[in-house]
Amino acid sequence: MTTPLLSPELIASFIEIVGSANALSSPAETAPYLVESRGLYHGTTPLVLRPGSVEEVSRIMRLASQTRTAIVPQGGNTGHVAGQIPREGKADMVLSLERLNRIRDIDPVGNIIVADAGCILADIQKAADDHGRLFPLSLGSEGSARIGGNLSTNAGGTAVLAYGNMRQLCLGLEVVLPTGEIWDGLRRLKKDNTGYDLRDLFIGAEGTLGVITGAVLKLLPKPLGHHVAFAGLGSVEDALRLFDRASSLCGPALTGFELMPRIGIEFTTRHIPGVRDPMPTVHPWYALIDISTSDSAESAERLVQGVLEAGVNDGLVENAVIATSEAQRKALWHMRESMSPAQKPEGGSIKHDVSVPVSSIPGFIAEADAAVMKAIPGARICSFGHMGDGNIHYNISQPVGADKQAFLNRWREINAIVHGIVLRYRGSISAEHGIGQLKRDELAEIRPAIEIELMQRIKHAFDPAGIMNPDKVLRSSST
Amino acid sequence: MTTPLLSPELIASFIEIVGSANALSSPAETAPYLVESRGLYHGTTPLVLRPGSVEEVSRIMRLASQTRTAIVPQGGNTGHVAGQIPREGKADMVLSLERLNRIRDIDPVGNIIVADAGCILADIQKAADDHGRLFPLSLGSEGSARIGGNLSTNAGGTAVLAYGNMRQLCLGLEVVLPTGEIWDGLRRLKKDNTGYDLRDLFIGAEGTLGVITGAVLKLLPKPLGHHVAFAGLGSVEDALRLFDRASSLCGPALTGFELMPRIGIEFTTRHIPGVRDPMPTVHPWYALIDISTSDSAESAERLVQGVLEAGVNDGLVENAVIATSEAQRKALWHMRESMSPAQKPEGGSIKHDVSVPVSSIPGFIAEADAAVMKAIPGARICSFGHMGDGNIHYNISQPVGADKQAFLNRWREINAIVHGIVLRYRGSISAEHGIGQLKRDELAEIRPAIEIELMQRIKHAFDPAGIMNPDKVLRSSST
Repeated sequence: MTTPLLSPELIASFIEIVGSANALSSPAETAPYLVESRGLYHGTTPLVLRPGSVEEVSRIMRLASQTRTAIVPQGGNTGHVAGQIPREGKADMVLSLERLNRIRDIDPVGNIIVADAGCILADIQKAADDHGRLFPLSLGSEGSARIGGNLSTNAGGTAVLAYGNMRQLCLGLEVVLPTGEIWDGLRRLKKDNTGYDLRDLFIGAEGTLGVITGAVLKLLPKPLGHHVAFAGLGSVEDALRLFDRASSLCGPALTGFELMPRIGIEFTTRHIPGVRDPMPTVHPWYALIDISTSDSAESAERLVQGVLEAGVNDGLVENAVIATSEAQRKALWHMRESMSPAQKPEGGSIKHDVSVPVSSIPGFIAEADAAVMKAIPGARICSFGHMGDGNIHYNISQPVGADKQAFLNRWREINAIVHGIVLRYRGSISAEHGIGQLKRDELAEIRPAIEIELMQRIKHAFDPAGIMNPDKVLRSSST
Repeated sequence: MTTPLLSPELIASFIEIVGSANALSSPAETAPYLVESRGLYHGTTPLVLRPGSVEEVSRIMRLASQTRTAIVPQGGNTGHVAGQIPREGKADMVLSLERLNRIRDIDPVGNIIVADAGCILADIQKAADDHGRLFPLSLGSEGSARIGGNLSTNAGGTAVLAYGNMRQLCLGLEVVLPTGEIWDGLRRLKKDNTGYDLRDLFIGAEGTLGVITGAVLKLLPKPLGHHVAFAGLGSVEDALRLFDRASSLCGPALTGFELMPRIGIEFTTRHIPGVRDPMPTVHPWYALIDISTSDSAESAERLVQGVLEAGVNDGLVENAVIATSEAQRKALWHMRESMSPAQKPEGGSIKHDVSVPVSSIPGFIAEADAAVMKAIPGARICSFGHMGDGNIHYNISQPVGADKQAFLNRWREINAIVHGIVLRYRGSISAEHGIGQLKRDELAEIRPAIEIELMQRIKHAFDPAGIMNPDKVLRSSST
């Protein structure tokens, strides 16, 4: 497939804005920007632009708007739904935010950090920590994901239960609009009821309404107490009951409640160096329970012991360990975070990032398991995730010895089965990863027409020329 | 002023939808729907419609859309900015949600309640309580405010510090669009990244984009421990330092931190029956500190004592009391909630509902006090509010013996002075009450043109005929 050409004059005008050192065009240079982590999508681009200031972003968008050139904003390129990847066979320009990586201000008393969109998430966490504060968003790719992307996808991760998604951690935004105009919404206010919520409209819009260039993020006091327990459980129902007990007992001190199946423990201990089963006994299901307290280390210990005691007394917890050192706590979390990578050596994996109401998790998993096993006898289902948020990564490894490609060719068919059950529970087909290109057409099918219509009207109101990350989230009429 | 007439045929068609018993037209019947709590705005209407089902709301909007009839949704009529009041001298129909007051479902394990928009806030609190759960939104008018209005104004109140505004407490919405189409967004999911955030667009839109008819709200485990302390402080700076200490020590267990000035204590003890100064000593400022814990009553006690000890050791707390009974806790909160009503017997009061970054509160109050005292020597400034949210109700009572009307005539002039200082601190001129009619033109003046333009485009995309609560938040071009 050949890429449509932009005129040399237009190319030169874009290059002039950022300087030739920051305009990449050779295949070797552009390649890393054109494929996402799972390798499902490969895009094409005439040029990757790496602006060094908000003003340069504005000039790029103004020129793009005048010339109807499609622009694809990109942060750390860690997204799972190809929202950050230019379309195949089109002349989409990539606008990388990676050089906009300055922390603009930090106010520990006001519990606020103001940062460029290109800041790496781990750098924000570190800056907060250096000032005795916590920035709680935490996810597997935090060492390379950038906050503009975290905002554009409303990132979730492991700390949502107590602290919320990225949406809940953002107070204000700076956005360059498709026309190049700059919206300065960098407010530092916890309460501000002055008109329509533009901030939350840009958050989660996956770069289709404008380019986020800066943000005001919330910080929190750093917890003094932190404990992690690992419990062996007989069923998902018991996990739900234990979650209910833990949630009532700990309130907002329950900072994580992760569900894992036995097969996940087997995969991680088999394939991930250093991961060991923390218990000598074998259980069908496991929960990782994370507790953080503000006042003292002792109160976290009291809580974790209280949760396990209640769980044992109620007949829910079959066996349990409490990590007694930071190293042990990290090891338990490392096991949890290795669930997905540990599936790779087991062959092909068909993945789902779904959510259902928390109380429906047992029903959903039981129904989905039955349907998937009927469709693919021998499939190895590894469903794990953020139980407290109702968010299950329902991943299916191929049967042992099956043909990998033949298995992966059934991705859409199996998606349809699993998502059908999700929808019967009024769940979501994308709990935290977004829509991008991967789920765009499916979204249009499953949502009421009026909802897609309202989204199209918003898109048109913000981006009438259709140049802003076209064909992501919604199918474009133009470009 | 006479009200423009709608044709008798059209009136009859609207009446037919709800039945004549639920269509009010006599001045005696419509009067309570036409004036807001402060009496600043008096509207006119040909008809107050009280639909009994979502389907009737839909039929009303369809007819309104076809005939370009303006519709003003109204809940408990407790708003402070006249967003719920029909315009003066126009033929706006009032659509009262008061008969849609059914709790549709409650799921304590899933921590969810689904309710009609016309449910009274206190009834939602009670239903949650009956199931061992907490619905935390709490505000002075909770006995008559309805959740549709709470959602449409993104209501705040006294529990925002730990639990967030109404926006943070809502998972899903059902909305009747200006065309009469029903958007079913009644999702029960904590995580759902599937396209633009329509929910947050309707929340806080003050009924200008559609009529909220139902909502899925979050419940929380009921705290086991609750303590309230009252501390005498030397300055606003000391209050900020004490807040910082309390916040670090308690984390999310700090469920309220309210600032009050000496004059507020004097007003409430003078005018509100049963309110007594809880301390024998006199202090320039006071803080009400509210702490709630999930695990036990003892942990709340430990925390409240820890906060006061830290405050005394740091030289911030001059004197303090801890309420030792539920009656005493209620008495302290009653004093705080009486701040505004206690100003009434002192004559005219010019009010501001502003927010600034938390760390800017001392600077803001000092500057505003100086400017107001210069403009109105003898003015009695009673600035109190939700310090932890940066939200100050900056209210000014008239000088003793001054002419009330002459004082109130300076409302806009004094607003301009105070809001000018708020804006220098990048604050908000409406922290929790919204824009409505009262602050509509001011909003257009203080915000960048591009922001108002984006809001107008959203309005037009949702309500091209301009029939949905026109002239609220934004000035209408039509109707």
